[in-house]
Amino acid sequence: MSLTHVNEQNQAAMVDVSAKEITVRIATAEARVTVNETVAAQFDGRDFVSKKGPVFQTAILAGTMGAKQTSALIPLCHPLPLDSCKFEVAFEGREAVIRCTCKTTGKTGIEMEALTGASVAALAFYDMCKALDPAMVIHGVRLLEKTGGKSDYRAESP
Amino acid sequence: MSLTHVNEQNQAAMVDVSAKEITVRIATAEARVTVNETVAAQFDGRDFVSKKGPVFQTAILAGTMGAKQTSALIPLCHPLPLDSCKFEVAFEGREAVIRCTCKTTGKTGIEMEALTGASVAALAFYDMCKALDPAMVIHGVRLLEKTGGKSDYRAESP
Amino acid sequence: MSLTHVNEQNQAAMVDVSAKEITVRIATAEARVTVNETVAAQFDGRDFVSKKGPVFQTAILAGTMGAKQTSALIPLCHPLPLDSCKFEVAFEGREAVIRCTCKTTGKTGIEMEALTGASVAALAFYDMCKALDPAMVIHGVRLLEKTGGKSDYRAESP
Amino acid sequence: MSLTHVNEQNQAAMVDVSAKEITVRIATAEARVTVNETVAAQFDGRDFVSKKGPVFQTAILAGTMGAKQTSALIPLCHPLPLDSCKFEVAFEGREAVIRCTCKTTGKTGIEMEALTGASVAALAFYDMCKALDPAMVIHGVRLLEKTGGKSDYRAESP
Amino acid sequence: MSLTHVNEQNQAAMVDVSAKEITVRIATAEARVTVNETVAAQFDGRDFVSKKGPVFQTAILAGTMGAKQTSALIPLCHPLPLDSCKFEVAFEGREAVIRCTCKTTGKTGIEMEALTGASVAALAFYDMCKALDPAMVIHGVRLLEKTGGKSDYRAESP
Amino acid sequence: MSLTHVNEQNQAAMVDVSAKEITVRIATAEARVTVNETVAAQFDGRDFVSKKGPVFQTAILAGTMGAKQTSALIPLCHPLPLDSCKFEVAFEGREAVIRCTCKTTGKTGIEMEALTGASVAALAFYDMCKALDPAMVIHGVRLLEKTGGKSDYRAESP
Repeated sequence: MSLTHVNEQNQAAMVDVSAKEITVRIATAEARVTVNETVAAQFDGRDFVSKKGPVFQTAILAGTMGAKQTSALIPLCHPLPLDSCKFEVAFEGREAVIRCTCKTTGKTGIEMEALTGASVAALAFYDMCKALDPAMVIHGVRLLEKTGGKSDYRAESP
Repeated sequence: MSLTHVNEQNQAAMVDVSAKEITVRIATAEARVTVNETVAAQFDGRDFVSKKGPVFQTAILAGTMGAKQTSALIPLCHPLPLDSCKFEVAFEGREAVIRCTCKTTGKTGIEMEALTGASVAALAFYDMCKALDPAMVIHGVRLLEKTGGKSDYRAESP
Repeated sequence: MSLTHVNEQNQAAMVDVSAKEITVRIATAEARVTVNETVAAQFDGRDFVSKKGPVFQTAILAGTMGAKQTSALIPLCHPLPLDSCKFEVAFEGREAVIRCTCKTTGKTGIEMEALTGASVAALAFYDMCKALDPAMVIHGVRLLEKTGGKSDYRAESP
Repeated sequence: MSLTHVNEQNQAAMVDVSAKEITVRIATAEARVTVNETVAAQFDGRDFVSKKGPVFQTAILAGTMGAKQTSALIPLCHPLPLDSCKFEVAFEGREAVIRCTCKTTGKTGIEMEALTGASVAALAFYDMCKALDPAMVIHGVRLLEKTGGKSDYRAESP
Repeated sequence: MSLTHVNEQNQAAMVDVSAKEITVRIATAEARVTVNETVAAQFDGRDFVSKKGPVFQTAILAGTMGAKQTSALIPLCHPLPLDSCKFEVAFEGREAVIRCTCKTTGKTGIEMEALTGASVAALAFYDMCKALDPAMVIHGVRLLEKTGGKSDYRAESP
Repeated sequence: MSLTHVNEQNQAAMVDVSAKEITVRIATAEARVTVNETVAAQFDGRDFVSKKGPVFQTAILAGTMGAKQTSALIPLCHPLPLDSCKFEVAFEGREAVIRCTCKTTGKTGIEMEALTGASVAALAFYDMCKALDPAMVIHGVRLLEKTGGKSDYRAESP
């Protein structure tokens, strides 16, 4: 029942994780949004409200729901049960900082969920503020920390 | 790597269930739809067929598929594997009664799946009959029973 | 190329709207959630915050996103572009009132979007408060008003 | 709390798998697409590129993502975690052959995921080539092999 | 702002339809499922009911909902509003025949919706009957007819 | 039928676009991924193939499909028909550059689709290469250009 493989080396394929151990896996990712002074001035120390509604609240909910869609968005990602998804948000000068921590009990890491959660939150942040500043830039989207897999990872300059 | 939290108390976040035990969890929810006499008269004791097709059949399939979308619809809901999703439907006078029972083997309860299943079934029921009666009202959407978690729940007047 | 139809009368089928006129269509639907005193007491006149986050904010965003998923949830619903989706929320005694108004420029009505938006918002409200009161009941889910189609509709006792 | 069941025998319901054992389950399905000479001539032994892009690559990614959507597409399918999803593709004369193998560690079989993966890949293949040949036919969509459940299955003429 | 394109010829890209005319477009596709005698014997001239529920009803609803997901499943498909989606089903000897007709008012053809609708209906049919016959084969998935675009299409041997 | 609005100012709501004109709207967004030398060395001038498959191809398809999911991911985004979605990719030293151009004929701008397309493509790129370099950083996610709305936009330093 074997086929003469066509372009075996070029083909996309999900990694087989069936033999991997089930462990508690945690990943934290970050995204940053650089805003202009008009946007930064709206911030009252807790959240801020654009014409479309509360900015951070909307970003956090969008990011949480986005993290749950990770395996539907990233072609070769395994579907994973999310035990937890939490966000921390802050303003550092003219930068909104968004951190997303995801936890699963599963066979493979959860860094794509954390990165997708942070990215979708940043995109929702952009959407809420774009009337005030279309030139916002999302940057610093990266993995901060990952534990529970074969090897841990910690970003060098958090 | 800690942030000065912005609005910690106000932030939405999924509950962390990673430390909870895996148990078989069952929940039953109900929704009712009050209809006019024209709709009630269509009912033949088994199902009834509106111009758009069989009403209860469509409601049951919509509810089953809706229950599977619960964690995509409810922002802070955990994705859960559904071991089973069953519906009971009946007509009591001018009320269609829809009951949805969901079962999972997981770390957290499945009442939102049962409530979402019953609600989506009721909405599909409305959609199938709305040409006959746009004034239908969905009511009595509630949890009837829940077992398998830290504490069981049973509605007082089922 | 015609088939001997099997069970023509029983078959579900989307209504053909290709010949209908494109008009601006608006629909408003309502859902109510009856809560216990513990939940009602949390309300500060604007929103209230459960352990999981801000209740009305989460409900409004869930409802907005749910309204956009209407045609994916209701089997025979036509996909419609949403020009607008707005929520009004209030507390009347021990009842949370959720109203959802949807607008489209299209060939068919948008009442299912408004009803789905209100229902999903009510389900998210339940999810945010269920630790305080699992006995909450969603009721009064109904169409309040619909304009722009062949015939307008207005509920008798709004 | 029991209802007089309406049309018990007719009602759709997911099978209850809560009592079934968790095992590693594997299924392989196949789909074939018959193409005209113009399409077949494009093939270079590895892949071929239509005006819309690389055909097999697109089919494989579409099939992988489609396999992950199986429980959202097939009404009574249980949601299952996918441990792996791999495709083999080949050209046999004027037939494109697409094989999809899915693996899960779960309570129920994964043949619908393999069949859905193969079908969606074949549909994407059609979409990529339809400008060259709208008369392509998808056929031979079937289960080749299934292991890990109560009883194994192997197609007679693979 | 131009980039040195990397692999321009190999890249997948949606066709640009912005300059195309809006017309009423109709497409009909067919899928067939070959079943064993046990399955064929269940059929009562209208529908038949497997242990999981009514087979054709479930297939028709799954196919309708699947047709609405076409642009989410097929990578380079344009999202299209569906004005209508109808199924005809029949049994011809040991073959279940499923026909899906989709209609849109838009800038590009709707054959992928009709093909996806027919395919998903056939997959749901398989799922409903697989306990009785795992060897069923889906075949003859093809476009029967297409009108409303630049050029019409009609299959040679319908 | 008016409610005493609870927290009117704080509430999230989609902007009402029903009165806006239908025009052809185009937006281009960019995302960049900084990679280590191991990843950069894989690049052959056209694409490169990681253990999981072809990197740019997978990123482009993921981004195209992600762009189509924009209104499902971003809470207050309007659903828009996509007339076109195209990607340009390149390597500039140790940076992968991803540009996404979206086109619609509609009532509101399409910049969120372009930004979401570029972001999801960058996330998929990360997923394909993360075994080689978990420290990759996504940055420079921004709108390059937007035309067709009330006012055009062009980034200062493209």
